[in-house]
Amino acid sequence: MTGCCTVVCDFLLEYDTPRIVLIRNKKVGAINRVVQLVILAYVIGWVLVWEKGYQEFDSTISSVTTKVKGIAITNSTPLEEQLWDAADYVIPSQQENSFFVMTNFILTKNQVQGRCPELPNKRTRCKSDNDCTAGYYNRRSSGVLTGKCVRYDEKVKTCEIFAWCPLENDAVIPKPAILGAAENFTVLIKNSITFPKFNFSKRNILTNANSSYLKSCQFNRKNDPFCPIFRLGDMVQEAGEDFQRLAVQGGVMGILVVWNCNLDRSTSKCVPKYTFRRLDNKNFGETVSPGYNFRFAKYFINKGGIETRTLFKAYGIRFEVEVFGHATILCDIIVLYFLKKSNYYKEKKYKCVEDSELGIESEDSYGTIQNSGKTN
Amino acid sequence: MTGCCTVVCDFLLEYDTPRIVLIRNKKVGAINRVVQLVILAYVIGWVLVWEKGYQEFDSTISSVTTKVKGIAITNSTPLEEQLWDAADYVIPSQQENSFFVMTNFILTKNQVQGRCPELPNKRTRCKSDNDCTAGYYNRRSSGVLTGKCVRYDEKVKTCEIFAWCPLENDAVIPKPAILGAAENFTVLIKNSITFPKFNFSKRNILTNANSSYLKSCQFNRKNDPFCPIFRLGDMVQEAGEDFQRLAVQGGVMGILVVWNCNLDRSTSKCVPKYTFRRLDNKNFGETVSPGYNFRFAKYFINKGGIETRTLFKAYGIRFEVEVFGHATILCDIIVLYFLKKSNYYKEKKYKCVEDSELGIESEDSYGTIQNSGKTN
Amino acid sequence: MTGCCTVVCDFLLEYDTPRIVLIRNKKVGAINRVVQLVILAYVIGWVLVWEKGYQEFDSTISSVTTKVKGIAITNSTPLEEQLWDAADYVIPSQQENSFFVMTNFILTKNQVQGRCPELPNKRTRCKSDNDCTAGYYNRRSSGVLTGKCVRYDEKVKTCEIFAWCPLENDAVIPKPAILGAAENFTVLIKNSITFPKFNFSKRNILTNANSSYLKSCQFNRKNDPFCPIFRLGDMVQEAGEDFQRLAVQGGVMGILVVWNCNLDRSTSKCVPKYTFRRLDNKNFGETVSPGYNFRFAKYFINKGGIETRTLFKAYGIRFEVEVFGHATILCDIIVLYFLKKSNYYKEKKYKCVEDSELGIESEDSYGTIQNSGKTN
Repeated sequence: MTGCCTVVCDFLLEYDTPRIVLIRNKKVGAINRVVQLVILAYVIGWVLVWEKGYQEFDSTISSVTTKVKGIAITNSTPLEEQLWDAADYVIPSQQENSFFVMTNFILTKNQVQGRCPELPNKRTRCKSDNDCTAGYYNRRSSGVLTGKCVRYDEKVKTCEIFAWCPLENDAVIPKPAILGAAENFTVLIKNSITFPKFNFSKRNILTNANSSYLKSCQFNRKNDPFCPIFRLGDMVQEAGEDFQRLAVQGGVMGILVVWNCNLDRSTSKCVPKYTFRRLDNKNFGETVSPGYNFRFAKYFINKGGIETRTLFKAYGIRFEVEVFGHATILCDIIVLYFLKKSNYYKEKKYKCVEDSELGIESEDSYGTIQNSGKTN
Repeated sequence: MTGCCTVVCDFLLEYDTPRIVLIRNKKVGAINRVVQLVILAYVIGWVLVWEKGYQEFDSTISSVTTKVKGIAITNSTPLEEQLWDAADYVIPSQQENSFFVMTNFILTKNQVQGRCPELPNKRTRCKSDNDCTAGYYNRRSSGVLTGKCVRYDEKVKTCEIFAWCPLENDAVIPKPAILGAAENFTVLIKNSITFPKFNFSKRNILTNANSSYLKSCQFNRKNDPFCPIFRLGDMVQEAGEDFQRLAVQGGVMGILVVWNCNLDRSTSKCVPKYTFRRLDNKNFGETVSPGYNFRFAKYFINKGGIETRTLFKAYGIRFEVEVFGHATILCDIIVLYFLKKSNYYKEKKYKCVEDSELGIESEDSYGTIQNSGKTN
Repeated sequence: MTGCCTVVCDFLLEYDTPRIVLIRNKKVGAINRVVQLVILAYVIGWVLVWEKGYQEFDSTISSVTTKVKGIAITNSTPLEEQLWDAADYVIPSQQENSFFVMTNFILTKNQVQGRCPELPNKRTRCKSDNDCTAGYYNRRSSGVLTGKCVRYDEKVKTCEIFAWCPLENDAVIPKPAILGAAENFTVLIKNSITFPKFNFSKRNILTNANSSYLKSCQFNRKNDPFCPIFRLGDMVQEAGEDFQRLAVQGGVMGILVVWNCNLDRSTSKCVPKYTFRRLDNKNFGETVSPGYNFRFAKYFINKGGIETRTLFKAYGIRFEVEVFGHATILCDIIVLYFLKKSNYYKEKKYKCVEDSELGIESEDSYGTIQNSGKTN
C-alpha cells in the first residue's frame, strides 16, 4: 500500500464494480438469452410502438351530454303565477360537460336606456348637483353620472345616472330560493367512453336498460346504482350539502364518473361509479363572496320601437361532469425456471460469512470462506 | 456449522450483499467521478429545475377557436321559406373548444303561459274532472294539472294543465333532417399551440397559407391535409358515419388535432394531423335514448304585452375539438469509453464457471476458479 | 478450456450473475429484515392502496367561476348614446372556466328574411339576369340567388339574393374598438382547489380578505398579488400585448393559476400564483385570419308580427382560466445504521485491486487479492 495520494484522493479515484460470476452452461445460457429476448421484444414492441399511440389520446376518450327535466311554479310577488321548464332555467341551453340550473334570481323587468336616480347609499346620496360629477363612474357603477342630483324617494336625493333604468336592486336575496323546487328536477347524463388502447367502448346506459326503465328509474346508490337519471336534491345531499341553503346563493357541484375496468373479466363488470362533491368553497359560513351567480338579459323591442331588456341576476348550481377512466389487462410474465443443478450454482453464488469467524484474519478472508458449500 | 437456530431462523437472519471489486487506478477513478458528476448535474439541473416548469403547464398550451359557415333553406310546413345562417343554427354562439350545429328541430311557436289540454296518452286521458288531481305533476310533466278534464279534440278528452301553451308535440322527429344541408357547411378551426419547455409556438394555419388560399381551400386527407377548413359531411364520413342519419337525431363528434413534433428537424415538419371519430354511442340501432338534443327558446313580448316564446327542440351535432401535443428533442448521451487495460479488469470482474468442473469440489469452489484469466 | 463451441456461441450461452456475500450475523440479519418489512409496508400501503385513490381524481380538483364588472358608453354612428354592462357584452352569460368580453362589433339592425341585392364585388356584379343563376349559393354566400340582377346603388347592379336583409357589411372593422373601454373592466375570479390525496382545500380569496377589501382591491403583482380581482388591461399588458390593438380584432388570453403547496409548512403559505399569456397566434402582423370573432343575433317580433333580428359580428377577447396544482409532503425515510463490526464486513465486501499489481498474474488473480484487508 504505497499510496502517494491522501485518503480523500484515494477515495475519489476508486472505482467500485460488482463482481460477476460467469457460468458456462448451455442450458442456463440459453434460458438467459431467451429471457433477454422476451424482455427486449417487450420493451421495443410494447413501450415504444404501442405506448406511443396511447400517449396521443390519453387513457380515455369520453363524451358527456346532459338533459335536465322538471318544472317549477312560482307565484311570488312581483311575479304572477308562472311556470318554469328546462328551456327557461338551464342557461345556456347546452354546454360541454356541464350544465347550470337557475335556482334563485333577482328580476328587473322592462329596463330601458335612460336616466334615473342611483340606489341610495353613502356614496350616492347628494344634496345638490355639485355632489355629482358629470361623466364620473367607477368599476362598480351601474351607469354614468349625469351631474344632476335628483329625488330618489320622498326622503332621499341621489345622483342621477345614465343607465339601464330602472336599476336592479340586489340588496336582498330572495329566501327561500324562488326555484327551490329544483330539488326535484332530474338530469339524464349520457356518457360514452372509449379506451383506444383496447378498442373498447361502453356507455353508462347499460345494455339491460330499455326505454321504459329509463322513463321511470332514478339513481339510488343502494337500489339502483346504474340508473343514469339523477335527482338534483339527491346529488347535493350525497355531497353533504343542504339543497335549499345551496339554492339561495348558488354553487358549483362536481359529478365524478369513474370507470375502472378490468377487461380480463366480463365486460358487463365494467360499470361506472358516480360520486358527487361540492367544488366551490365549502365553508358556507363565509360571507365573503359566497355562492355562484351571474347576470343575463332577454332583449325585447317595446311598442315604441325602443329596445328593452329583462335583467336576471341568476343564482344557481353549476354541475360539472368529470369522467375518469382506467382499464387494465393482466400482463404479468411469470418466470418460472427450475434446474437440476441449481444447488451447485447456489453454492457458487452465495458465500456464507459466519459470526463465529469474526476476528479470524485467515488468508482467505477476502470474502471467500472455506467449507461454505456445506452450509447450503 | 454449529447453528443453534433452525433453518428458518437462519434464513431470516441472513443478510445478502453483492461483492464489490474496488479498483485503485487513477484513470479509471477519474473517469468514474466525471461520469458521476455529469449524472448529478443532469439530475439536479434537468429533473429538478427544468421539469418543475414543465409540470406546471403540462406538455402543451393550446387555444382553439372555430367559425362555421354555410346557409340552408327550409320551406317545409309549417315553416315558410326561410334561410338559416350561422347566427341561427350555432347554439350557443361560442364555446370553448367545441361548437354545436343544429341539424334538425321541432318548433313550437308562440307559446304563452296558460291553460291547455295535455297531449293524449294513457295517463292523460280522462272522462271527468275526478281523473285529474289539481296541482299534480311529475318529473316528466310539461305543466301542472288544474283539476279539469277538457276536450283535446273531437274524440278525446284530456286533463287540463297550466303550462307554456300550446304544448310541444315531439312524438315524430322530422325525417329527413330539416337542416340536412348542414352536410355542406364548413368550419374554420384555428388552433395555436405552444410547447413551453422548448419555447416553441405554431398555429395550424401554416405560414405558406395566404388569404386567398384560406378562402378557397377545403380539407382533404389526400390532396390538402393542412387546410384548416373542414366540410362537416367529410368529417362525419371519415368517422364512418352517415351524415343524413346522424343529422336526424344528432350526436357528438370528436375532432382530434395531434401535433407530434421532432424539434431537432425543421419546424416546417411540425404539422398537425387531424382525425375524426364519433364520441357518443356508435350502435346506431340502439333505440334507448339515442342522439343528442336539447331545448332552447327565443323570448318575445307580443302585442298585448304578454311574454311569448318560440321553443326549439334542437337536434344536432356537437363537435368537440381536442388537441394533443408532444414535442421531442434528442437528448441521448452516448457514453463511449475505451481503456487499454480493460482486459485486465475484465479478468478481475468476470469469473468463469465451466460445465466440466461440475462435481469437482475443489478448495477454490467458492466461486473462484483457477486459470479463468485464460478464458477471456 | 476444452470448448467445442465458437467464441460467439460461448458468449451467447454464458450467464452472468453478481456474486453475493451471505452474512450470518443476527444483528445485521434482523436489521435487514426490518428494513425489508418497512419497504414492503410502504409499497403495499402507499403505492397500492393510497395511490389508487389518487389516480382517480388526479392531483387537484378545481372549480372556477368568474364575474366581469364595468360599463362602457358608446355614441358612435350609427348608434345613439348607449350604455353597455356585463349582461350586454359577456356572451354567453356563463361558461365553464372561461369568459368572453366583446370589445368591438359590427351591428346590423332589423334584419328580416327577404330579398335584397348582394354587396358589390367581382363575383356579385351583374349586367342582366343571365349573370345570376337562380338557386346558386356557395359556402361563403349570405343567401341564395333569386336569378335577378338588381340595382345596388346608382352606379352598380348586383345579383339579388334571398337572405336576412339588409346584409351585413363587414368590410371595415371599427378602429379604435367600439368597446375599447373594456380595458378598465375588472373580473373577479373565484377558484377553489382540493388536493384529495391530502384532504386539503383552499380558495383564492384568502382568509384575511373581507368584504370591504374585495370591493376595493385590484390585482397588482407587486403591491397586491393575492387580490382575485383583475383589470383586463393589466392582464393583457402583462402578457406583453397592447389592449387597444387586441380589442380591434379580438384574441384568446390565458389566465394561469398555479398552486404549488408544500403542506409541511404553514398552509397560509399555500397561495396561488397568477400568470397571463396570449394563447392564439402572437404574430400580430399576420393578416391571414387574425383575432377572434363570431356572430350572434338577438331576435324580435316587429309590429307586423314578422321575426326580425339584430346581428352582431362580435370581436372580443376570450379569457381561459387554467388551474394547475401540485402539493407535496416530505416523505423521506432516513435510514441510518451504525454497526461496531462494520469494518470487518467492509473487508469482506470490498476488494482492492491496486494499480501496482497490474501485470502480476498470481494464483489469486481471479479477483481476490491478498492483503486487501490492510488497505481499509
